This record gives sequence, structure tokens and C-alpha cells, in this order.
Amino acid sequence: MNENLQRYLEIYREKLEATYNTYFSHLDIPNNLKESMLYSLNAGGKRLRPILILASYEVYGKTLDKVMSSAVAIEMIHTYSLIHDDLPAMDDDDYRRGKLTNHKQFNEATAILAGDALLTYSFQLISSDDLLTSDEKVELIRILSEASGPAGMVAGQILDMEAEKQAVTLEEMEEIHALKTGELIRFAIIAGAYLGGATDNQLKHLTDYAYYLGLIFQVQDDILDITGDASKIGKPVGSDELNEKSTYPKLLGLQGAIDQKNLYVEKAYKSLHLAGAEDSLLAELTKYFSERDH
Amino acid sequence: MNENLQRYLEIYREKLEATYNTYFSHLDIPNNLKESMLYSLNAGGKRLRPILILASYEVYGKTLDKVMSSAVAIEMIHTYSLIHDDLPAMDDDDYRRGKLTNHKQFNEATAILAGDALLTYSFQLISSDDLLTSDEKVELIRILSEASGPAGMVAGQILDMEAEKQAVTLEEMEEIHALKTGELIRFAIIAGAYLGGATDNQLKHLTDYAYYLGLIFQVQDDILDITGDASKIGKPVGSDELNEKSTYPKLLGLQGAIDQKNLYVEKAYKSLHLAGAEDSLLAELTKYFSERDH
Repeated sequence: MNENLQRYLEIYREKLEATYNTYFSHLDIPNNLKESMLYSLNAGGKRLRPILILASYEVYGKTLDKVMSSAVAIEMIHTYSLIHDDLPAMDDDDYRRGKLTNHKQFNEATAILAGDALLTYSFQLISSDDLLTSDEKVELIRILSEASGPAGMVAGQILDMEAEKQAVTLEEMEEIHALKTGELIRFAIIAGAYLGGATDNQLKHLTDYAYYLGLIFQVQDDILDITGDASKIGKPVGSDELNEKSTYPKLLGLQGAIDQKNLYVEKAYKSLHLAGAEDSLLAELTKYFSERDH
Repeated sequence: MNENLQRYLEIYREKLEATYNTYFSHLDIPNNLKESMLYSLNAGGKRLRPILILASYEVYGKTLDKVMSSAVAIEMIHTYSLIHDDLPAMDDDDYRRGKLTNHKQFNEATAILAGDALLTYSFQLISSDDLLTSDEKVELIRILSEASGPAGMVAGQILDMEAEKQAVTLEEMEEIHALKTGELIRFAIIAGAYLGGATDNQLKHLTDYAYYLGLIFQVQDDILDITGDASKIGKPVGSDELNEKSTYPKLLGLQGAIDQKNLYVEKAYKSLHLAGAEDSLLAELTKYFSERDH
């Protein structure tokens, strides 16, 4: 990663964490609930989605203040989805990023409720942000609820469950990825650019960009599960094959997956160019995501 | 129940069900998810919250069209909270209203996701309702997320769990009720009146009214668990005592609980009067809720 990008990511992460800590310090709720919500928010993820929304905003907009509630909201929704995903009835994971999962640290009931609370609070945050107009709040809530709801992320989780241990085609696998992880990435890119003042035409091309970016992220994940260094990616390599997961390398071979990724990178750059964002941090992030080793 | 009230409730229920069936018929989501969401929505509750929002709207407003998305939203949020409440990690109930609970009919993972989807979709519905202005949407979403989120309903569920099998005071018990069930009732009353065009002063008195109405509902629930007819209330009587639940009769004695209820009824009527709603369906509903036998 180049130094410029690294510095930006650090600034973004610090700003995100300072913002949600301020929100939570004003939130008068039962201690146990607050601890559980913050435990998972603080569990140290990559902050991919908030970084994308800030980077997308900065292509067109100026001060970051206007976009911070949306950045926190998307990270809270991502976090709620991980908490519910880790539950015994779902993926049944005891650890995430080297720390106990929420239901192991607290208990299942608290984890379910902490997830529900993070989801609900994300809409409360946006609806009560004084820096946004009513029109902006409505547009953000509309896209966010669509992206994370029954026709978006939740649909992806249902389809992913149904596809487990079944043979799926490349098309079906891409639809699952587009819903399960792509929809929130789309929200990040579109919401940031919208608040920054992008035109409808720019938003159209950024929608394409977000689609390819989500797939790039996924192909690279699949490739790292074969070629990666376990100590860097934080989980054993080869786990996809063990779990009989449908992956790009499984469907296309390793070289085929790399070729597919490069095709998506090309398309992503082209969309960025059409959106007038070819020299932005988004372009650097695209390169970084496609080449990351963890 | 008098005939006038009964006719209204039937009209309200039919309108509610027709509305959400129309919404769902346009919702392009995985079959299994849609079935699971509709299974619990159709499980035949009393529709208390949507009835309250419609009745509150009609005190001040005209055609019901404007309030229907909020009526469906509140019923979806109530339904999601029941689905998650029934899970093995929470109350572990196999049946609700004589039907299998969602996770017994489908499975736990689907039930968790159907709850998440109902919650998220409720905000999507309001944010995309063409009959509302942006200001109205924001105000509704703000109150609804506050009422159902970490400082509202979810806080009540956490506190309720913590209070189980502990001695609590009347004050603590009323705080739990006010959060766990009272907050959504407050949303129903306030949202309906707000959309109908109530003044700020009227909304202030209706907030008091909603508070007492929630408590009336709860006291009567506790009383029916002792004096009720099991075949009418749909569950065995005496279950509260068996579960060592803190109830009004336990803390005040049966006559004390009845006296307390009558005090709340008096206060509720007074608030209704101050809100200019003394001759409304809300007054009839208050009487009905305080005297209901199931």
C-alpha cells in the first residue's frame, strides 16, 4: 500500500471511531446492551464500508461532517450482520478476528438483541442528523434499508444458506455475492457520492463501479484462501475447499479466477473514469483491494 | 365490545392485511424468506398497534391512506420482536397463538433472518411511501427507530431478561413495561395523531395518554392471568406465578391491581380530554382494553 493511501485510511478509521464513540457516550441505554454493541463495533474490522463511503464522498464533496452518520450507520449494519451470522443457528463461530464472537463473550440472547439494536440505531442516527436535509435523510434511509433488507443483504444470506454444499453456477454465485456483500458496498459508494453532490449520470456509473468492486473483493478473498499466508489473512488457508464452498478458483481454476479479477478491475476503472473519479482515492482503493495479501 | 367499535376494528384489520399483502406481492425476494415473514405476520394477532395508529389518526385526520405504511411498519416491528423473543436463546417458545413459532415452522436461521428483514423493511416502507412528505417520513422514522431501538423496545427486552426471577419494585416493573411494550404504543398514538395534523399541545397530552394506555394493557394482562378463562385468553392461567414473574397482583394484591388499573384509566381519560379526543374511538378502545376478558 502506498503511503498516501495508508495515511488516508488511518485518518478515516480514527474519524469513524471518534464519531461513534461520541454517539455512544450520549446514548442512555442499559450497560450490558451498550457493552455488547461496542464490543463488536470495536472488534477491529477493516472498516472497508465506512472507508468507501468517505472516499466516495471526497471525490465530489468537501468537509466530511455530512457523511459521518452514514459511515457509522453502515459499519453498525455490517457489524449487526456479523453478530447474527456468527450465532450457533447460523455459522456457529466462536471466534472472529481472533476475539470471541459476541454470543460467546456475552450470551446468545444478548447477541441477538445487540444486533437488532445496531440495525435499528443506524436508522435513528441518520434520521436525527442535524447536518442533513429531510430529503437527504429520506434518500439515505431508502437506499440503506433497500440494500440491507429482504431484497438486499438478507436475501443474500438466505440464498447463501440454501446454496451451501450445492453445486452452483458462476452466475448464481455472483448473484449471492452481489446481494450478501455487494449491496452494502453499493450503498457506501452511492451514498457518499450523493451527499458529495454527484450528478445522476455519475451515480449511474458509480453503481456499475460498486458492483465490480464488490466482485473484485470477493475473487481476491477466494484466491487468498488458496495462495495466501495464514498468518496474514488470520484464518487457515484451504478452508473454502474444506467447507465445500463455491468459489471462483473452484469454478474457473486459479488462473481463471485471476483473469476474471483482472477483467473486473478493468471494468471498475472504466466506470470510475466515466464517473470522473479516475484520479481519486477510489482508484487507489480498487488497486489495493485487488492486490491485497490479507 | 359495542357494535360500533367491533365494526371499526374489523375494517381496520382488513385494511391492514390488504395493505401489507399488496406490499408483499410487489416484493421480489427469495420465496423462503417471504413465506417466513408472512407466516408470522399472518399468525393472527390482535393488531393492537395498527388499530391504535389508525384510531389516533382518525381523531384529527381524514382518509386513512397516509397512515397505512406506518400501520404496516409498526405491525412488522412488533412481529419481528415476537419472532426473536420466541427463539430458543430467548423465551424458547414452540407455540404462539396456537400455531408453531417461526423457528419451529421454518428453522432458527430463517427465523432470525425473517425478523431482521421485517425490521429493516419497515423503514424501507416508510421511506418510499409517495403519500408522505420528506419531513413526515423523517419524523416517523426518527420516532419509530427511537421507540424500537436500543433506548426503547430493545432496552426493555434486555432489562426484562435481567429482572427475571429477581425481586423488582413496582417502579422498576413499570419502567420495563414502558420500554418493552409502551414505546411502540407511544409511537402508534403519536405517529397517527402527527400525520392527522394534531397540534404540539395535543401531542404532549397524547404522549401521557399512550403511557397510561400501555400500563392499562399490562395490568389487565396480569389480572387475566389470575381471573381469566384459559379457553378465552389462549394460554393457561396462573403461568405468571409459575414463572415467578413480577406482576401487578403479586406486588399489589389482586384488588390493589384492579384499583391501580382504574387509576390509570382515569388518567388516560383525562389526557384524552386535554388532547380534544374524549369522544373518539381511542376513548372506546381504552374502556375496551381495561375490561377485555382475553
